[in-house]
Amino acid sequence: MNKLLLESGKYLNPSGEAVSGDIGIENGKILFCGVKPAGWQADEVIDCHNSFTTPGFVNAHTHAAMTLFRSYADDMALLDWLQQKVWPAEAKLVAEDVYWGTQLAIAEMLASGTTAFADMYFFMDQVAKACMETGMRASLSRGLIEADGPQQDQRFEENEQLFVDYHGAADGRITVMLGPHAPYTCPPECMKKVVAMAERLGAEIHVHLAETQWEVDQSMKKYGKSPVAVLNELGVFERGAMAAHCVWVSPEDIEILAAKKVRVVHNPASNMKLASGAAPVAAMLAAGVTVALGTDGATSNNNLDMLEEVRLASFLQKLNRMDPTVLPTRQVLALATQGGAAALGQADSLGKIAPGYKADLAIFNTTAPHWWPQHDLASMLAYAANAADVSHTLVDGRVLYRNGEFTTLDIEKVKAEAGARGLRLVK
Amino acid sequence: MNKLLLESGKYLNPSGEAVSGDIGIENGKILFCGVKPAGWQADEVIDCHNSFTTPGFVNAHTHAAMTLFRSYADDMALLDWLQQKVWPAEAKLVAEDVYWGTQLAIAEMLASGTTAFADMYFFMDQVAKACMETGMRASLSRGLIEADGPQQDQRFEENEQLFVDYHGAADGRITVMLGPHAPYTCPPECMKKVVAMAERLGAEIHVHLAETQWEVDQSMKKYGKSPVAVLNELGVFERGAMAAHCVWVSPEDIEILAAKKVRVVHNPASNMKLASGAAPVAAMLAAGVTVALGTDGATSNNNLDMLEEVRLASFLQKLNRMDPTVLPTRQVLALATQGGAAALGQADSLGKIAPGYKADLAIFNTTAPHWWPQHDLASMLAYAANAADVSHTLVDGRVLYRNGEFTTLDIEKVKAEAGARGLRLVK
Repeated sequence: MNKLLLESGKYLNPSGEAVSGDIGIENGKILFCGVKPAGWQADEVIDCHNSFTTPGFVNAHTHAAMTLFRSYADDMALLDWLQQKVWPAEAKLVAEDVYWGTQLAIAEMLASGTTAFADMYFFMDQVAKACMETGMRASLSRGLIEADGPQQDQRFEENEQLFVDYHGAADGRITVMLGPHAPYTCPPECMKKVVAMAERLGAEIHVHLAETQWEVDQSMKKYGKSPVAVLNELGVFERGAMAAHCVWVSPEDIEILAAKKVRVVHNPASNMKLASGAAPVAAMLAAGVTVALGTDGATSNNNLDMLEEVRLASFLQKLNRMDPTVLPTRQVLALATQGGAAALGQADSLGKIAPGYKADLAIFNTTAPHWWPQHDLASMLAYAANAADVSHTLVDGRVLYRNGEFTTLDIEKVKAEAGARGLRLVK
Repeated sequence: MNKLLLESGKYLNPSGEAVSGDIGIENGKILFCGVKPAGWQADEVIDCHNSFTTPGFVNAHTHAAMTLFRSYADDMALLDWLQQKVWPAEAKLVAEDVYWGTQLAIAEMLASGTTAFADMYFFMDQVAKACMETGMRASLSRGLIEADGPQQDQRFEENEQLFVDYHGAADGRITVMLGPHAPYTCPPECMKKVVAMAERLGAEIHVHLAETQWEVDQSMKKYGKSPVAVLNELGVFERGAMAAHCVWVSPEDIEILAAKKVRVVHNPASNMKLASGAAPVAAMLAAGVTVALGTDGATSNNNLDMLEEVRLASFLQKLNRMDPTVLPTRQVLALATQGGAAALGQADSLGKIAPGYKADLAIFNTTAPHWWPQHDLASMLAYAANAADVSHTLVDGRVLYRNGEFTTLDIEKVKAEAGARGLRLVK
C-alpha cells in the first residue's frame, strides 16, 4: 500500500493547533496535509470524519521486555524492590523471554498511539528482531554495567555487534546507541571505555542520570561533583546523548545539559511511583534543554501509556512550581512528539505532521463522551483523552494497528507466550 | 431482570484481593459471591471468563454539568480562570443546559466504571431528573453562596426543596445534602443558616474546604483560625459532613476532621492541574480520617475518570512523602470504592462485593495487552488498567452500560445537545 489518504479529519499541526484537512501519505512519508492536490489518487482511504490525528508518540525511555514483570512487585522501597524482586527475576531471563516481552510491549504501545521507543535492556538482538517483524520504530541500546573482566567485555561486544548489525536497519527504522546504565553502575573507568567505543563507532549514548537523591549524594561524596558534571568531564555528552530522568539536577547541571545539547527524557509516572522526585522540567525547558517523555519499564509505571505521561508531566510540573500556567497543552504535547523525535536524533524526519516527515501517526477516535463538547481538541488530547481512543497507528505510513487489530503481530500468541513466561520468571 | 449471574470471573473482594468465583445478583443486591448455591437460576448471565469485577467507583466530588466547559479554558491562574472564563460562561446556564451536561457526565462516568457521584451545582432538580432517568446513583447538593437577601434566600429554598423532593428518592438511589460552597464564599452568618437548616431537615453537608493556601491565609487573617477550625466551631461537622479537597490542613485540623468523622474527598487531578497543592492523604488516613476520591468538575481535570484519580492519588502521595510504600494498591482502591461509599454515608450498603451489598459494579475486560502477564489483577487495576477496559457498569443490579452501549440514555442525542450547548455558552 503506497498511497494512503486520511480523509476529512482534524490533525495536530506543528504549532499544536487542531486543524481540519486531509493527510496524504506516499512511500511512507507525508506528502501533503490540508488540501488534497488535484489528481492525486489514494490506494487506500481511512475515513477521519470523527478523528483527530496526531504525530505518533515517542516513548523515549523504556525497558520494553519488563512488561513480563508488570505488577509483579509494587509499593516497595527501591532497593528492596530491585534486590528482592526485579534482579532475581531478571537473572532468569533467556533470549526468547525478551523477544516475547518486547512483542507484548510493542502491542501495548501501538494500541496506545506510540510509534517509536528508546530501549535499554539485554538480549537486544531479540528486541531488534521484534521491531523488524512488527514494523515498529526503535532506538536500541545494550545496558552496560561494570562487572568482572570477561562479563563486562561481553556486554560491550554485544552493544558493538548490535550497532554493526542494526544501526540504520529497516530503512532507518532501527537505530542503535550505546547504553551505559548510569554513573553509579558504570563508574569512570567503565564510562571511559564507553566513550572510546562511541568515538570509534560514531555512536550516541543512552544513559540513566540523576534519578535519585541518593545517586547525587553518592557522587558528591565519591567525586566531589554531581553525576551530570562527572559524565560531562568524561566526555559522555560530546557525541550526542540521551539522559533519562534528570530529577536531581542543579542550575549548574542544567547549564551543562543545555550547552552539551543533552536530550533529557522525563518519566513522570516512574519518578512518582518510585518516589524518586519531581524533575525540574520547566527550568530545563527555560534553559533551552530538549526534553522528551518516557514511560520507563512497565514494572515502575505499570503501563506504557504515553498519554498518561503527557498528562502527568503537565500536572506534576504545575504542582511542583505551584503555577497552573506551566507546561500548557501545546508544550507538553510537543514533548511527547517533537521532543521525542529530537531525543532520538531524528527531529528532521519525525514528530510532526508536515510534508516530508515520516508518516508515524496516531489516529484518535473522538466519539467517546469525554471528547465532548469539542471546545479544543488539543486540550482534550492532553487532559481528557484516553489511550484506548486510538483507532489506528501507523509507522512509515504502514497501518500496524487498526480498530483493535494488529496487522503485524499475533496478539493471542504474544499474550500466551508473554503471560506464561512472566509467571515462570517470578516463580 | 431480577436475577443476574456474573459467571466464572475474578472479582475484587473487600480486602482488596482478586479472587475467582461467580457473583449472583437478585433484586438489585449481591446475593452471593464465590460459589453459586445449588438450584439458584439466573434470568441473565454475563460471561466473565476474561473479566475482573470491582465495586463501582464512587466519584465523591464533582460538578457534573461542568462537562459543558471541558477544555474550554486551561493552563490559567485560578482567579483569571474563574473570573474571565468559568463564571461568565456559568452565568448563561439555563436549566436544560445542566440537564444535558449532567447526562453527558453520567455517560462518561458509566463508561469508566463509576456508579455513584456526589454533585454540587445549581438547577439541581435537573441533575436529579437525569439520575432518575438514567438509573445512576448520586448524592446531590445545591451550591450555597452568600449573596444579597432574596437571591441567597432563593438558593436556600432550592436546596431545601431538593431535599424534600429527592432525599431517598428512587429507592434510596438519590440522596440530598446541603451544599455551602466554601468557608470563604459562605462566611459565618451564611454558614450558621446552613447549619440551622441541616438541623431542621436532618441533612448532611457537602462543602469545599482548605483547597488553597490563599483560603487558609485569608481565614487566619480574618478569623485567626484555619477554615477547618472555623467550620468546626460553627457546628458544620455535627450532623455528618463531606469536605472536598482538604489540601492545606494542619495536624490540628486533621485531629478535628478525625474526631468529627468528616469524610474528606481527595481530588488529585484537580489539585495538581490547578496547582492547589498535595493533600496530606497519608497523614489523614493514619489519623483515622475517612478519605474518598473525586474528579472535581471536568473543567479542572478534564475528564471524570476515577481510575486516573486512583493512580494519581497513589503516585502523588508516594512523591509527596518520598516513600514508594505509601498508599499501596489495596488501600488506594479502597478509597475509590469503600471510601466513597462512606463519604456518601452508605458504607453499610455500597462499595464492597459482598452478600447483601447493592450490586453497583464495574466489570473490566482483561484482554488488552496492558493486563498481561496477570501477576496481580488488583495491582494492574490500580496502576496499569485503562478506564476504557470497562465492559459493563451496573447500578442496583441493572446493567446501564454494556460493551460501549448505554441502556438508559441516548448517547448521540446527549452529545449533540451537550455539544451545541457547550459551544453556545462560551460564545
